[in-house]
Amino acid sequence: MTVEQRQALEMSRFESLQLLSGVSIGRIVYTTRALPAIFPARHLVENDSVVVRTRVAAQCAGSVIAYEADDIDATDHDGWCVVVTGVARQLVDPAEIARYDQVLHPLVRSATAELIRITPEIVTGFRIVKSPDY
Amino acid sequence: MTVEQRQALEMSRFESLQLLSGVSIGRIVYTTRALPAIFPARHLVENDSVVVRTRVAAQCAGSVIAYEADDIDATDHDGWCVVVTGVARQLVDPAEIARYDQVLHPLVRSATAELIRITPEIVTGFRIVKSPDY
Repeated sequence: MTVEQRQALEMSRFESLQLLSGVSIGRIVYTTRALPAIFPARHLVENDSVVVRTRVAAQCAGSVIAYEADDIDATDHDGWCVVVTGVARQLVDPAEIARYDQVLHPLVRSATAELIRITPEIVTGFRIVKSPDY
Repeated sequence: MTVEQRQALEMSRFESLQLLSGVSIGRIVYTTRALPAIFPARHLVENDSVVVRTRVAAQCAGSVIAYEADDIDATDHDGWCVVVTGVARQLVDPAEIARYDQVLHPLVRSATAELIRITPEIVTGFRIVKSPDY
């Protein structure tokens, strides 16, 4: 049986945020009751920050969270993955909220689908490609 | 501007594990240096447990972690998401490891791509569907 060989090639912060900005769905990674938790969400990348509409905004506010997006082919497994990590700040300014209400809709209907902004302290990203010796 | 409305419909443990077993790539969610972390990985569902090959196996062993997989359409956003949560146990039995070496390959080549088994204490899953009043 042939074992496929792929490697992870690290990307720059710029390239990582550019790929993140090209998709609209990711996953928010946080802690709830001391347990690791993850939930799909929608996002926008603006300048160097990531705005996320999520039903767990209140749980995440003030905490360090991770936000991940990826696009990995289900068959050949090539693709990419980006993770931003930073403190989540809940948006409270009515004008700002009104603006995102127009452009960043919730993934699912929820009474608690509110907005947070992550100013990433850490941005990691890698491409998954076939190894040259494969 | 029309706001699309979708809702999350909870799935049973059985249906959730069945969907998880139908895909081969997911994401391991854990804590490293007190920060939330996430990494793509490959998995198999066997009976009621999930076996994951990941480069962060050693970091996860003995801890409660989450493992997530989803399939959400990039355009219409319908789809599903499954999360299993439980203690990760690193596989150490050579015969067991040899068996998984045949059927569960690493997503990316790594010297540390080892195996963990999660016996889920919590299984959550939901389908994202258009709201009936949409």
